[in-house]
Amino acid sequence: MSVKNDHTYMALALEEARSAEIRDEVPIGAIIVDPATGDIIARASNRTIEHSDPTAHAEILAIREACAQTNSQRIPNYDLYVTLEPCTMCAGAISFARINRLIYAAPDPKGGAIDNGAKFFDQPTCHHKMEIVAGIEAETASTMLKNYFKKKRS
Amino acid sequence: MSVKNDHTYMALALEEARSAEIRDEVPIGAIIVDPATGDIIARASNRTIEHSDPTAHAEILAIREACAQTNSQRIPNYDLYVTLEPCTMCAGAISFARINRLIYAAPDPKGGAIDNGAKFFDQPTCHHKMEIVAGIEAETASTMLKNYFKKKRS
Repeated sequence: MSVKNDHTYMALALEEARSAEIRDEVPIGAIIVDPATGDIIARASNRTIEHSDPTAHAEILAIREACAQTNSQRIPNYDLYVTLEPCTMCAGAISFARINRLIYAAPDPKGGAIDNGAKFFDQPTCHHKMEIVAGIEAETASTMLKNYFKKKRS
Repeated sequence: MSVKNDHTYMALALEEARSAEIRDEVPIGAIIVDPATGDIIARASNRTIEHSDPTAHAEILAIREACAQTNSQRIPNYDLYVTLEPCTMCAGAISFARINRLIYAAPDPKGGAIDNGAKFFDQPTCHHKMEIVAGIEAETASTMLKNYFKKKRS
């Protein structure tokens, strides 16, 4: 069990998503938490445009930051909160990082890889699965993304 | 058509893989080439241990380098050569980067995501597919990896 509840941490991931929106990046945010202490060791949001880097998704940036802080490529004692269902690239990174628990907000039928598309954690080529909780603050996360893309198209 | 042939470029990717082996990293190398000119704009090999970064696969590092050089998160005029079938994470990154052509050496039944596992490019959640050539210098790449893991186990 987390010291605080999943909604509290997802609210922080949503704050990160909002900061991406302000920078005109796709509003997705991620937080990595130590569930034993409640400490947040990494927070990030999409920076693919700013960094000219297609891998600069919120989850990848948060994992890289957390791993740098712990001097390890594996962070098995940490939980990752993200505002959108991770894509194939991020699902792979989450598995490699040996994340303890994955909590995501909105589903992503077009690009997700957890409950959609590749369903990576169900593949025999996935060598680390974890507890997954979906739907925490889904409405808020989903509305933020819909508004962003609506504005982009107008 | 490439200015040089696929075997020539894969030989350079194999050189990168060898450099990883010397640094005691998993020997996988990648090269990104402009097929119009034959120029190599990025070369990389695995650095997950050195960087304490589970995302520091050869393909990801090469894509990040090529994108930084072109100031773009998309590099649709470039071909990527890699010595092992890309994993799920790297397949996602290759698709996001809009790579023109993917050429890989050895198949990876345990972790690959092109012709194995998630078969990401066949998923409806994959929004950019490219020409894929498999098996170029496969024997050399495969032997290098087998020897590396054999030595690790001994």
